[in-house]
Amino acid sequence: MSVVITGTPRVPLETARAFTPYGVATVHEAQGRTGLLASCMRPIYPGAKLVGTAVTVSLPPADNWMLHVAVEQCREGDVLVVAPTSPCDVGYFGDLLATSLASRGVVGLIIEAGVRDVSTLSEMKFPVWSKAVSAQGTVKETLGSVNIAIVCAGQFIHPGDLIVADDDGVVVVPAAWAAKTAEAAKAREANEGEKREKLASGALGLDMYKMREPLAKAGLKYVD
Amino acid sequence: MSVVITGTPRVPLETARAFTPYGVATVHEAQGRTGLLASCMRPIYPGAKLVGTAVTVSLPPADNWMLHVAVEQCREGDVLVVAPTSPCDVGYFGDLLATSLASRGVVGLIIEAGVRDVSTLSEMKFPVWSKAVSAQGTVKETLGSVNIAIVCAGQFIHPGDLIVADDDGVVVVPAAWAAKTAEAAKAREANEGEKREKLASGALGLDMYKMREPLAKAGLKYVD
Amino acid sequence: MSVVITGTPRVPLETARAFTPYGVATVHEAQGRTGLLASCMRPIYPGAKLVGTAVTVSLPPADNWMLHVAVEQCREGDVLVVAPTSPCDVGYFGDLLATSLASRGVVGLIIEAGVRDVSTLSEMKFPVWSKAVSAQGTVKETLGSVNIAIVCAGQFIHPGDLIVADDDGVVVVPAAWAAKTAEAAKAREANEGEKREKLASGALGLDMYKMREPLAKAGLKYVD
Amino acid sequence: MSVVITGTPRVPLETARAFTPYGVATVHEAQGRTGLLASCMRPIYPGAKLVGTAVTVSLPPADNWMLHVAVEQCREGDVLVVAPTSPCDVGYFGDLLATSLASRGVVGLIIEAGVRDVSTLSEMKFPVWSKAVSAQGTVKETLGSVNIAIVCAGQFIHPGDLIVADDDGVVVVPAAWAAKTAEAAKAREANEGEKREKLASGALGLDMYKMREPLAKAGLKYVD
Amino acid sequence: MSVVITGTPRVPLETARAFTPYGVATVHEAQGRTGLLASCMRPIYPGAKLVGTAVTVSLPPADNWMLHVAVEQCREGDVLVVAPTSPCDVGYFGDLLATSLASRGVVGLIIEAGVRDVSTLSEMKFPVWSKAVSAQGTVKETLGSVNIAIVCAGQFIHPGDLIVADDDGVVVVPAAWAAKTAEAAKAREANEGEKREKLASGALGLDMYKMREPLAKAGLKYVD
Amino acid sequence: MSVVITGTPRVPLETARAFTPYGVATVHEAQGRTGLLASCMRPIYPGAKLVGTAVTVSLPPADNWMLHVAVEQCREGDVLVVAPTSPCDVGYFGDLLATSLASRGVVGLIIEAGVRDVSTLSEMKFPVWSKAVSAQGTVKETLGSVNIAIVCAGQFIHPGDLIVADDDGVVVVPAAWAAKTAEAAKAREANEGEKREKLASGALGLDMYKMREPLAKAGLKYVD
Repeated sequence: MSVVITGTPRVPLETARAFTPYGVATVHEAQGRTGLLASCMRPIYPGAKLVGTAVTVSLPPADNWMLHVAVEQCREGDVLVVAPTSPCDVGYFGDLLATSLASRGVVGLIIEAGVRDVSTLSEMKFPVWSKAVSAQGTVKETLGSVNIAIVCAGQFIHPGDLIVADDDGVVVVPAAWAAKTAEAAKAREANEGEKREKLASGALGLDMYKMREPLAKAGLKYVD
Repeated sequence: MSVVITGTPRVPLETARAFTPYGVATVHEAQGRTGLLASCMRPIYPGAKLVGTAVTVSLPPADNWMLHVAVEQCREGDVLVVAPTSPCDVGYFGDLLATSLASRGVVGLIIEAGVRDVSTLSEMKFPVWSKAVSAQGTVKETLGSVNIAIVCAGQFIHPGDLIVADDDGVVVVPAAWAAKTAEAAKAREANEGEKREKLASGALGLDMYKMREPLAKAGLKYVD
Repeated sequence: MSVVITGTPRVPLETARAFTPYGVATVHEAQGRTGLLASCMRPIYPGAKLVGTAVTVSLPPADNWMLHVAVEQCREGDVLVVAPTSPCDVGYFGDLLATSLASRGVVGLIIEAGVRDVSTLSEMKFPVWSKAVSAQGTVKETLGSVNIAIVCAGQFIHPGDLIVADDDGVVVVPAAWAAKTAEAAKAREANEGEKREKLASGALGLDMYKMREPLAKAGLKYVD
Repeated sequence: MSVVITGTPRVPLETARAFTPYGVATVHEAQGRTGLLASCMRPIYPGAKLVGTAVTVSLPPADNWMLHVAVEQCREGDVLVVAPTSPCDVGYFGDLLATSLASRGVVGLIIEAGVRDVSTLSEMKFPVWSKAVSAQGTVKETLGSVNIAIVCAGQFIHPGDLIVADDDGVVVVPAAWAAKTAEAAKAREANEGEKREKLASGALGLDMYKMREPLAKAGLKYVD
Repeated sequence: MSVVITGTPRVPLETARAFTPYGVATVHEAQGRTGLLASCMRPIYPGAKLVGTAVTVSLPPADNWMLHVAVEQCREGDVLVVAPTSPCDVGYFGDLLATSLASRGVVGLIIEAGVRDVSTLSEMKFPVWSKAVSAQGTVKETLGSVNIAIVCAGQFIHPGDLIVADDDGVVVVPAAWAAKTAEAAKAREANEGEKREKLASGALGLDMYKMREPLAKAGLKYVD
Repeated sequence: MSVVITGTPRVPLETARAFTPYGVATVHEAQGRTGLLASCMRPIYPGAKLVGTAVTVSLPPADNWMLHVAVEQCREGDVLVVAPTSPCDVGYFGDLLATSLASRGVVGLIIEAGVRDVSTLSEMKFPVWSKAVSAQGTVKETLGSVNIAIVCAGQFIHPGDLIVADDDGVVVVPAAWAAKTAEAAKAREANEGEKREKLASGALGLDMYKMREPLAKAGLKYVD
C-alpha cells in the first residue's frame, strides 16, 4: 500500500502567484469558509508566509523515511504537506532536509507533527507550520506514500492543491477552485481597502454595513 | 435579554494613567493577588502592553455581530473585553474592527476566543490578548449584550473596570479599588527597585528577607 | 525530608564549554536519543540558548520558598532546574530572583511550572524555559529540597548534570556521560556540515544515504 | 481579606426541590442559556445528580484549610462550591471531608480542582463534579474565604444560589431567578414530553418545528 | 454551497452485518491500519458498540439546524456522522433527536463536537461517540450540507461508508473496501482465537512469533 | 544500549501483600507525598486496583516489540510498567498480551501511552492504567530495554519497586522504603477509621484537628 505517485499535475505557477497579495483569512473567506487547517498549526517564526503547490506525504508515527523519498518529487514552487498516520509530536524535520528542499525551490513545509532546528530554519527563512517543536528524532524503518490524497490537520488535501499560509494559519485551495478563488479574493480585498479607509476616518460599521435596522428587528435594546 | 448599556461610568483617565509604569505581576500583587485572567490569554506579539477601561461584550459562539454594536460604545482610553457564552476559538476580530477601534482611541482588545489578521494587527501595534489565533470567521445572526457584567477567562469584569495587560497576562482592577491599588502598586514598585539593586550587588534574599531563622525552625537541614 | 545538599560536584567548566557550539537536537542524538525534556518546556524568547550545570530544586505546588534557599547554592556556570511535587502553572520566578542569580553568574532557569516578569527577563537576556507564563505569585510556607535528584518534565536530573537548552527544547547530559557526549556531538556536527553542503548543491538524500535499495526491498513502488 | 460570611440566606428548600425533576440541559435552556459551568467539570461516577444551595469557598492553590472552615457553615440541602485562586488539579477533598459533609445533610461537591478517594466517594453515593482526580494532598497554611461571591469554572456564583448538576455538567441558578427558572423549566419539560412521543412515533422535526419553509428560504437545495 | 444529497447508496446491510463480530482494533488492522478517527472520540457509556452506514453532516459551529434536515435522510442501519466546520464543543444533540433517529432504525451517532442528555441517551442505549459532553445548546440559523464527503476527527468519510465503533474508538471502512475488509477481519480473528489459547496456556510470544533470532540480530543483550 | 536485565530482585511478596488494604492516597501520604504518577494515568474501568512489583520497559514511540521481550521476564505478582522514549498515544497493548501476562500471574499494566481491546481487558478484569485508549497499533522494528530504571508519567521507577494503583491513580513505592511505608500506611489508616466515625457522628474537623486557634491567629474573621 506504499506508493509514490510521480508526475502529479499542480496548480499552474501563474495561478499560484495570483495569491501572493492575499492572507489566509481572505482566501478562506473567498472560497466560502472552507479549507482551513486546525489552529494547532503554528508558524515557527512570526511573519512567515507562503503560497505553493502541495506535494503530500503520509508516513508512520516517529518515522521520517518517506520525507527523503518526497524530496525527489518536489520542484520549484512546491510546498511539502505531511501528516503521520497516527498523532505524533516528534521532530520529523530539521535543517538538512530544509537545505535539500530549498535547493530545489521548495517554498516551505506544513506538518501535523514536530520539527527541530527551528533556530536555523528561522535564519534560513525556510517557513514551517507545525503542531509542535521537538528535538526528538525519528527512525527510518517503515514506508508511507507520496502524492496520495491525505488528511492534514483536519483538511483533505490532494497533491497539486494550492496551499496558502501566514501568521493566521494554513488554508488549502483545491486545484479545481484555484482560479475562481483567486478572483473572489481579489474582489474581496479591493472591497476591504475601501472599508478600511472609511473606518479609519471614523465611520461606524453599524452604518456602513446597515446593521441598525436588523439589530432592532432582532430585539436589541439600548438602556441608559 | 440582549441589551446595550450606554453611558457607563469608567475609572477616570488620570487614575488609569497612574497604572502605566506597572506590570501585571505588580498590579496583581498590589490588589491582594486577585483579578488575574487565566494564563491561556496570550498577547499576539511580544512586548504588547496596555492600560484601559473595560467596555464589555457577551456574545454567542462563532457570532461577532455584537462587536460592531460595541464599537459605537467605545471612547478614548477604552479596551474591549469580550467573552463568548460558550467556549469558541474562531477568529471573531480582524484588522477592519481594529482600524475602527483605533480611530476612536481604543487601546486594545481582550478576547477569550480567537482573532485573525495578526500580522496586520502587529504592524498596527494594536495589542490583543486572546485564547487562540484562527482565520475562521464568524456569522452575524444572534444578539448578545454590551456593557453588562461578564466572566472573561475566569474573572468577573464590570464595564468601566480597569484592565492592565502585558507579556505576563491580563489583570482586572475593579473600578472601586483602582485608586487604592494604584497606591499599593507604587509602594510595592519603589520597594522592588531597592531590592533589585541589593540583589544585583550580590546580597542574598535569604538575608535580605530574614529567612534563615524561619527555614531552620521549619526543619531545613544542610548536608555536605 | 527537606534537605539542602551542599558542595555538590559539577561537570567541569571546560567540559561544559565544549558543548557551546552544539544545539539540543545534536546533543540529544549524540547521546543515543536520551535525556530530552518534554516539549511543553518552551523558551520565553526566541533565540534563547544555554549550557550549564544543574542545581536542582524540588518544591511544593505554588510555594517558591526553596528558590531563595537554592540561590545561595549556585555559582558561576550553573543553571537552576526546578520541578514542583505536583503539577502547577503559577509564576514561581520573576526579575528579582533573576537579578540575584545573574549576579552569581548563573546562566538561566529550567522550570516545569510558570514564570512572570517575562518582558524584563527578556530584556535582561536571562533565558528561561518554562511550561507556562503566569503573573500569579506563590507563598513561602513549606520546605522542599535543593540538590537532590529530581524528575523535571519527564527526565531524571542529578545535581551537577549538564543542561543544554535552545529553541528546540532542553536536554540533560548526565555528568558521567558529558565527555563522551561532547565528542560524539563534535563528530556528528563535522559530519553535518559536509552533508549540508552537498544537499545545498542539489544532491539527494536518497543517493547520499544510499536509501534506494532498502526502499525498493521494503516494497516501495513508483507509479506515474 | 479572608472572611467567613455567616448566616447567608439560601434559595428556600421548596424552591430547590422544584428543580428535582429537571436535568441540567433543561434548566440551562429555561434560564436563557446562562449559568453553565465549563465542560471540564465531570462527575466522578455516572448517574450522579444533585440540586442544592451553594456554600462557596475561595482558597489558595494546593491548600484546603478553608474546606474545614466551610463545613461548619453548611446545613441540610447545601452543596459546597469550591474554586482555587489559581488553577490547581491536586486532590483537595477525600472521604473524611465527605463523611463530615454528609453528616450535615450536604448533598454534594462542585470543585474546579482535584479530588481523591473517588472509589469510597462513589460507594458513599456522595456526588462530586471536579476538574481532575488526583491522590496528591494539600497543605493547611493559608486562609481563603467562605460564602463570598466566586467564579467557578467560568461562572459567577453567589452563596445561596441554586446549583443543579448531572451527567451533562453543572448549572448555577442565581437565587433571584430560581422561582422563575423553575416555572420555565416546568413549561419546557411538559412540552418536551409531548414532542418526544410524536418523534418516537415517526414524526419528523422538519414538520413538527415547521422548518421546511425557512430552510428553503435560506437556500437549501436537495439534489439526487 | 448548502446541499442535501438524497438517495445516496450505502454499503449493503448484509455486508455491514458481517462486521458485527469484530472490534475496532481488528477492523483497523484488517484494512491496513487506515481509517481510525482521532482518540478524542469517546463513547458516552462503557460497552457501547455499533456497525452502520454513514449519513454525513457538515454544519456550522454551535448551530444544529442541519441535524433536523439529516434525520429525514436516515434509514434502518444508518449511523449519523457529524463534523462542524470549525472546532466546537457545545451540545448539538440530545434525547429528542435520539428518539427521532431511533424511530427510524438509526443505530447511533458519531460527532466531533458535544452532546447532552447523556443519562437519557445511556438509558435508551442509543450509543454516541463524541469529543465532549456539554449542556450548552445550539441555534438554528445557518445551513450546512447532508451526505457530502466530510472530514470527521481526522478521517475522510463518504456518505454510505461503513462505520464500526466500540470502547476502543471509531473506524471508517470505505464502501469500496467493505467486502475485502470483512474477509480480512475474519481471517485475522480466527487467527487471534488460536493465539489466545496458546498464550493462555503459557506459550511465549517470543517463541510463537519467532522473535528471538531477529531480536538477537538487532543487537538485544541479556545481562544478569 | 538495548538491554534486558534478568534476575532483578523485587520487593518480597509478603511486603507487597501488606499494601493490599490501602488506597493510593493513603500510601502517597504515608511516604511523605512522594511517588505519585501524573494524573493523566487513568484506569480503563472503575474499581480497578492493584499492588505489584515493577518490571520496567523503555521502548520507542509506536513500537511494542519490547513488550514481547518483557513478558518472559515477568512472574507471579509483577506489574508491567511501560514508558515510551517520546510521547505517544497509540495502542501498544491489547488482549493477547494481557492473556499472556495473566497466564504468568502478572497483576496489571501501567503504561504512559495508549492501549486497545479495553472491552475485553475489562471483562478479563485485567487492570490497566494508561494515558489514552486507541485502536492504532504499533510496529516491531526497534529495540528498547527491560528492567532498567525509567521515568513513567513523571516518576522515577526502578525494576522491583512496588506499585499501588486504584481509581485515584498510581503511586510507586521504592523497594528500599516498602517496609517503612507499609507501617506508616497502617498507622495512618487506623487513625482514619477513628476520625471517620467521629465525623460521621457530627464532630467538626475544626475541633477535632484543633484548628480554631491557628485560624484566628492567621487572621480569619467571621462576619454576619
